[in-house]
Amino acid sequence: MTFEISRTVAQVDEALDRLLPPEDTFPAEIHGAMRYSVFAGGKRLRPLLTLSAAEIFGVPQLHAMPAACSLEMVHTYSLIHDDLPALDNDNYRRGRFSNHKVYGEAIAILAGDALLTMAFETLAGEASAYFPAATVVRLMEELSKAAGVGGMIGGQVVDILSEGKQVSAERLDYIHRHKTGALFSCAIRSGAVMGGASLAELRILTSFADKMGLAFQIVDDMLDITGEQALLGKKTGADAERQKATYPALFGLDAAQKKAVDLLFDAEQELEPFGEAAASLYYLAQKLVHRQS
Amino acid sequence: MTFEISRTVAQVDEALDRLLPPEDTFPAEIHGAMRYSVFAGGKRLRPLLTLSAAEIFGVPQLHAMPAACSLEMVHTYSLIHDDLPALDNDNYRRGRFSNHKVYGEAIAILAGDALLTMAFETLAGEASAYFPAATVVRLMEELSKAAGVGGMIGGQVVDILSEGKQVSAERLDYIHRHKTGALFSCAIRSGAVMGGASLAELRILTSFADKMGLAFQIVDDMLDITGEQALLGKKTGADAERQKATYPALFGLDAAQKKAVDLLFDAEQELEPFGEAAASLYYLAQKLVHRQS
Repeated sequence: MTFEISRTVAQVDEALDRLLPPEDTFPAEIHGAMRYSVFAGGKRLRPLLTLSAAEIFGVPQLHAMPAACSLEMVHTYSLIHDDLPALDNDNYRRGRFSNHKVYGEAIAILAGDALLTMAFETLAGEASAYFPAATVVRLMEELSKAAGVGGMIGGQVVDILSEGKQVSAERLDYIHRHKTGALFSCAIRSGAVMGGASLAELRILTSFADKMGLAFQIVDDMLDITGEQALLGKKTGADAERQKATYPALFGLDAAQKKAVDLLFDAEQELEPFGEAAASLYYLAQKLVHRQS
Repeated sequence: MTFEISRTVAQVDEALDRLLPPEDTFPAEIHGAMRYSVFAGGKRLRPLLTLSAAEIFGVPQLHAMPAACSLEMVHTYSLIHDDLPALDNDNYRRGRFSNHKVYGEAIAILAGDALLTMAFETLAGEASAYFPAATVVRLMEELSKAAGVGGMIGGQVVDILSEGKQVSAERLDYIHRHKTGALFSCAIRSGAVMGGASLAELRILTSFADKMGLAFQIVDDMLDITGEQALLGKKTGADAERQKATYPALFGLDAAQKKAVDLLFDAEQELEPFGEAAASLYYLAQKLVHRQS
């Protein structure tokens, strides 16, 4: 492995700290709310995916960092909005009060909006310092499509509309692929785009991302059943309570575990053509599936 | 005047109809909600500003249209989120139920998110067909800054935090310049950016936009006091009820009217160097201040 996860996470944190306006910038309430959720102990998976995909093509970490951070901003905004009373109504996130419990619903909604907007501002501004405009436009296209109604938001909508209902395997697949998968895939593709990946390389990495995204989601849903609340920093059993459509709920824990491991195996096969250059991405994939929190 | 407003509005409507996924696209709920608010009889002021600013520099309307539509998407998202119970709690908008009254809060929040995201997708995708990537990145930078926490969202935050409080003229100015002014200015600047405006030209048009944005907001606030509910399509007197900080509330109706007309005069002076090329923008400015709804 060529990068050490904890060190890279610290670098992502530093970059996010630099990109977000200081907490006391007027109006302080919104900047405090944005920072509260961005620095809530997130695992920075999406930035790590972007950085390790970029690494395959030799893109310096400094150059890939703004795009990596833009992914984390979009992810954080989606969590803030997801937790709102009108959506999942979650009072806790990563062991702390969710954003609206601290800042109120109005500021939480606007903090989410602001982070989504800042993701694009970061690409237009910071990523432009290192890449030609055509590459920046490609990054914007990837992010807006993945985050939009044909991607993450579409998945959130179907997820919400499916609560308390019998859900087909096909519908579950749609939710996974869109709600989590789209941004996962975007994180990896963005790294490849910055590296000037060929169409064939982009296709391989997209296939890897699709498999990994699904494996990650299955593990996430399993941890909601079997995980330790203290490690996860959130209430477990929430999906069952809400009758959420999840892979383990539909097929059982054993089948879910097998599916996740199979997907990981298939995903890792995809990386072979890249050899040693993909070591970080390979290592990250292992960590994502074999995690306890 | 070189373009007829109603015809141009119809062309903006057509373009928006083409850009937004059809209502029956899966998941239909969100596409219905997005379209409900985008096609709610908006005056398309921001697209008109973009198109008429672009016209100064001879940019074909077809080319300027995606950016014009992206402004309307951002404006519409801000209205959907503004109307939410946690924010302004408005049940009506333009004579119809507000988005969350029809689609529920969850879908309304996501429909707003989706429109904001689609604005950037439209620039990355559609505007790229007509302009070099560097211009598209400039457009993204303008839009993300104007819509973000240093622009529109900042204004919304201060507006919310000021409700029911004595507000200084300085704070009121901040709210106006950010909540409405930033996007107004962005609409005009985006037209200029597409036209390859010089820095000096951009500065002139920004000054015009600042004045017009403020004049527009003052007239808006006056209409909330003196306007006819039927013409406006929304309840009047809402600001007073909510003790909102507005120019007429702070300085009285007469002073507000004088201020709006003075601003219009000053703004129009700015356009002189452009001569006949700015006829549409000049005409639009007149219409914005001397309106009844």
